[in-house]
Amino acid sequence: MLHIDTQAIAEMQHLYRINLINGITGYKSANLIGTIDEDGGTNLAVFSSVTHFGSNPALIGLVLRPTTIARNTYDNIKKTGYYTINHIPGHLVGAAHHTSAKYDPEISEFDKTAFNPVYLKEFSAPYVQESAIKMGMEFLEEIPIKANGTILILGQLKDLWFSDAALVAEDGFVDLNAADTACISGLDAYHRPSMLDRFHYARPDKAVETMPMDKKHQP
Amino acid sequence: MLHIDTQAIAEMQHLYRINLINGITGYKSANLIGTIDEDGGTNLAVFSSVTHFGSNPALIGLVLRPTTIARNTYDNIKKTGYYTINHIPGHLVGAAHHTSAKYDPEISEFDKTAFNPVYLKEFSAPYVQESAIKMGMEFLEEIPIKANGTILILGQLKDLWFSDAALVAEDGFVDLNAADTACISGLDAYHRPSMLDRFHYARPDKAVETMPMDKKHQP
Repeated sequence: MLHIDTQAIAEMQHLYRINLINGITGYKSANLIGTIDEDGGTNLAVFSSVTHFGSNPALIGLVLRPTTIARNTYDNIKKTGYYTINHIPGHLVGAAHHTSAKYDPEISEFDKTAFNPVYLKEFSAPYVQESAIKMGMEFLEEIPIKANGTILILGQLKDLWFSDAALVAEDGFVDLNAADTACISGLDAYHRPSMLDRFHYARPDKAVETMPMDKKHQP
Repeated sequence: MLHIDTQAIAEMQHLYRINLINGITGYKSANLIGTIDEDGGTNLAVFSSVTHFGSNPALIGLVLRPTTIARNTYDNIKKTGYYTINHIPGHLVGAAHHTSAKYDPEISEFDKTAFNPVYLKEFSAPYVQESAIKMGMEFLEEIPIKANGTILILGQLKDLWFSDAALVAEDGFVDLNAADTACISGLDAYHRPSMLDRFHYARPDKAVETMPMDKKHQP
């Protein structure tokens, strides 16, 4: 076994440390955050920290470091109160990674990548046309993380869009495999998952039961 | 396109809503949290909310609802100050799901599943022997989420264990495919990801570059 302790982590070369520590929590969600500024300039940025916080109301968290590339995203969310979360498709992971390049604030990543903005209902922030699953979010609360200066942005889901109704199963299960949603490991690796199994609610002293295939995947 | 708005979410049947909203953030990390109480009783529980918060110091977050099955995990973390995070292997996802069954507090999930506890160095909380990547965590801070009563537990990584040093590439990249780490979607679906690509640092007006294969995967 390889053992690494706190002191070894503190003494690591910067790039080695961020590669390592960004990799150890496991696979991460792969989303594009779409925002717009008060002059109509759009911004699109890849995030791997989108996290479920609750279903009723539907609360979603996002961790960011406002002093870095996420500055546009942060400023736009705070100024307008709205943003979108869009799943990264497996066939466009290169374009998604390109949104992490440090463009000047007045340049839109929509103009520099394969992604196209689309406006749905009266929602002000741009969605990503190419994403099978898109969320319109309202900013709720900003929670500063004292330990390292990062910020947890909490938002409430206002509008949820699926490119195809068949992505949602009879019981509300979302078929991410069929949506071709990617996931991320570390800072720069993109993956496509395949379902191993979907299980029924687990009960004490009873073997875990696999769900029938028609519940696992859409026909 | 299928459109679902805030009101439709509020009016959904409970199970449909939690399936749906737990699915829309994308793939989630798949980890087992190991804890021990003051009498030496162990606990093991599956979590899909483990999130990277920072690399220096190495900070990891965990969202939980202390009134549910996670009660043991929460109590043990608060009382002892220590816990472990262990990757769920793709070949043991059924056993991992079984840890979500509501066993009485005095019953250890280690005795009811295929997972075995292992104690490493002087760390008090049990690790999972079968996990290729294991983390020993020290409780740092508890952040109450006012909007819905959930709690964000922040911890600092103290000890990091890899079953094989080859899981860490030359530049610190962690090969989760080789570790057979699973990921989760929704409440009950487990997946095994395959890498699509790993990219170099993105720069403005420059095509995204793929890393050579020996950086993407271990030899």
